[in-house]
Amino acid sequence: MRIQLDRERFIETMREQAEIGGTEDGGLHRLALSDEDKRIRDWFADRMEAEGLEVRVDEFGNMFGRREGTDPDADPVLVGSHLDSQPYGGIYDGAMGVISALELVRTLNEEGIETTHPIEIVNWTNEEGSRFQPAMQGSGVWAGAHDLEEEYATTDADGVEFEAELERIGYKGDVPAEPTTEYEAYLELHIEQGPSLELEGKDVGVVTGIVGFTWGAITYYGEADHSGPTPMHYRSDALVAAADVITQIRRIPSTLGDRTVGTTGYIDAEPNSINIIPSEVTFTWGFRDPDDAVVEEAFARVLDEAEAAADREGLDWEWEERMRAPSVDFADQCIDAVDAAAADLGYDSMHIFSGAGHDATHLTEICDTGMVFAVSEDGKSHTEAEYTSWDDCYASANTLANAALDIAESDS
Amino acid sequence: MRIQLDRERFIETMREQAEIGGTEDGGLHRLALSDEDKRIRDWFADRMEAEGLEVRVDEFGNMFGRREGTDPDADPVLVGSHLDSQPYGGIYDGAMGVISALELVRTLNEEGIETTHPIEIVNWTNEEGSRFQPAMQGSGVWAGAHDLEEEYATTDADGVEFEAELERIGYKGDVPAEPTTEYEAYLELHIEQGPSLELEGKDVGVVTGIVGFTWGAITYYGEADHSGPTPMHYRSDALVAAADVITQIRRIPSTLGDRTVGTTGYIDAEPNSINIIPSEVTFTWGFRDPDDAVVEEAFARVLDEAEAAADREGLDWEWEERMRAPSVDFADQCIDAVDAAAADLGYDSMHIFSGAGHDATHLTEICDTGMVFAVSEDGKSHTEAEYTSWDDCYASANTLANAALDIAESDS
Repeated sequence: MRIQLDRERFIETMREQAEIGGTEDGGLHRLALSDEDKRIRDWFADRMEAEGLEVRVDEFGNMFGRREGTDPDADPVLVGSHLDSQPYGGIYDGAMGVISALELVRTLNEEGIETTHPIEIVNWTNEEGSRFQPAMQGSGVWAGAHDLEEEYATTDADGVEFEAELERIGYKGDVPAEPTTEYEAYLELHIEQGPSLELEGKDVGVVTGIVGFTWGAITYYGEADHSGPTPMHYRSDALVAAADVITQIRRIPSTLGDRTVGTTGYIDAEPNSINIIPSEVTFTWGFRDPDDAVVEEAFARVLDEAEAAADREGLDWEWEERMRAPSVDFADQCIDAVDAAAADLGYDSMHIFSGAGHDATHLTEICDTGMVFAVSEDGKSHTEAEYTSWDDCYASANTLANAALDIAESDS
Repeated sequence: MRIQLDRERFIETMREQAEIGGTEDGGLHRLALSDEDKRIRDWFADRMEAEGLEVRVDEFGNMFGRREGTDPDADPVLVGSHLDSQPYGGIYDGAMGVISALELVRTLNEEGIETTHPIEIVNWTNEEGSRFQPAMQGSGVWAGAHDLEEEYATTDADGVEFEAELERIGYKGDVPAEPTTEYEAYLELHIEQGPSLELEGKDVGVVTGIVGFTWGAITYYGEADHSGPTPMHYRSDALVAAADVITQIRRIPSTLGDRTVGTTGYIDAEPNSINIIPSEVTFTWGFRDPDDAVVEEAFARVLDEAEAAADREGLDWEWEERMRAPSVDFADQCIDAVDAAAADLGYDSMHIFSGAGHDATHLTEICDTGMVFAVSEDGKSHTEAEYTSWDDCYASANTLANAALDIAESDS
């Protein structure tokens, strides 16, 4: 069976959610556990209740709404994403995945469609990781990747504790933050956050997995000498060594694979004065690839380069790997359902590996998982300039809804 | 005639001044026009008056103390440096030049020595340039390199105006901030702030000039994309281009001259997040050389490298030269006097070109100028770790005093 979401209502609902925390420049500023997050949660709970869903909030703030199926033994199909945003981020990232799930339920109710499996829609707490770290915190706790108490104790830049904020906004629920049943599958719609679909002229992306990655930081310790009277050969310049490695982080991917990426996003230099040789510089690496062995090789290479640069400048140094995530492959059941939905609806789709992490990453530990990607124009995300045309938004939402329906209608 | 400063009193006076704004770790925190600056100025004025000097403060806060000579037509010999310090700087930088000048006068008084030329000792306002910019502000205004009203209007990081602070501490004097007479010569003692004297095993340095330099900043404008899903060839990474140029700033001096130095002291990246490709990076260049043509060549080279790096990454960019100073050569009269004093006192000396700017830079526009350098152990300055042994301090102070006396005794 195929359904068509109500295009106008879907767009209207997208616009409605975008007003809560909406910015003057058309973006979204809705940080996890902020007042804006409370308002969008209240809004979402109301909309779920209006559809007759059984709403529950777990002790980590993850929000679920359940629509029963016809088979009491069938495991639910879980569909959703996150409603929090980056600081001055876009209106599509995350939110569109939740709104699409809501529209799926609305359409099923409207058309009186019953499914074999229950359908649960979900808003995961703090996917963005910009106010509290780590990212994908809610789905991570729920899936057992993180310890509940440890994550409660995380603090934002002002030292405010996660748990206190969760209580303040009234979303510390009473349901355990863990799967209390088996799940048939998890499907998530998200914007691509890269340019591939647009460059290939596709309508939707069928995500087959998520790249693995390594994140870390290197710190060099040199000597803060006066930049004038200190001869070049007498220097131990922490910034020169950092620059050396940063150019290698640009270069390493080209020696490893066509899908390998490497980035230095952060740098801090001390004392950071035009007239003083930098004595201490910290900078980060990030490498991603669908192949975990390639990630491991990139990790080894950057440390080799860091050591060589330290030797050249005569510096002490240290490094820290801050995060390592293996790549995940999505389940055939989900990939096939998304493929079929896109084809049946007449959308031009392509298989794509996600370059960014998503809540779906953690869900692969729990059940069959899949994702639908929407076009990201110019690949932009995490900025108010993030943009997806309503045509592309609708295509991806419709694909998600039909893929979810497919699985929900399957035999248990 | 040769004199010997009183070693114990000299050391005692150095220690006394170091208590005003002294830090727990044995350094000095005596920012220009701060309460500590007021206290050291009061202390210095008292000491000058105690020696019977005619004290005057000019409208920019430069402090002078005059000891008359025997020839009413003879121009004064000016001797001094500055009493302000860097934030958590050392106790020698600047201060030792002023204390040595005071000790010269004390010794002349004690021994009843009259000189042909008057001797004036001086404390220049805000040499360091750390609270208010530019550096060497007081001597620059006095010598006509800067406009008085413009410098009055400069503000510190809190937006406090220079003129208001000068009035607040009671050091906006009524004498014009300009030479009101011809000067026979200016002599300044300063720590080397580099390792050359120590490396060569010398007691004192006879400074023959000051290097020229160019300071500037380059800003790259790229695209703040997500570091995961953005393919390497789709990126315009502002930090990679900056890193590229920073490694060249390390390399350019080696192609130009054995005394050329090049430094990036400052870097700022936006949005500076581990997971986002840097969209905007500003960093600085600084090149110095005794030969102005080499400085010009380094300036041209860094802009060539900056353009090449911008092209490679597909970035917009802009640059700004913030300061250019020609190299200056000191006067034979002064170099000879310092040479002779060191030799007569039995100190092992060497000629050295200053790699850092000093108040003496501006004084070359007014009169014959020279400098004495004290050993800087390990080349350290602008840090609490700055250190010169009392033996080396005394050797340089004694050299300065005798060189100044030599010129002050010369025919007018």
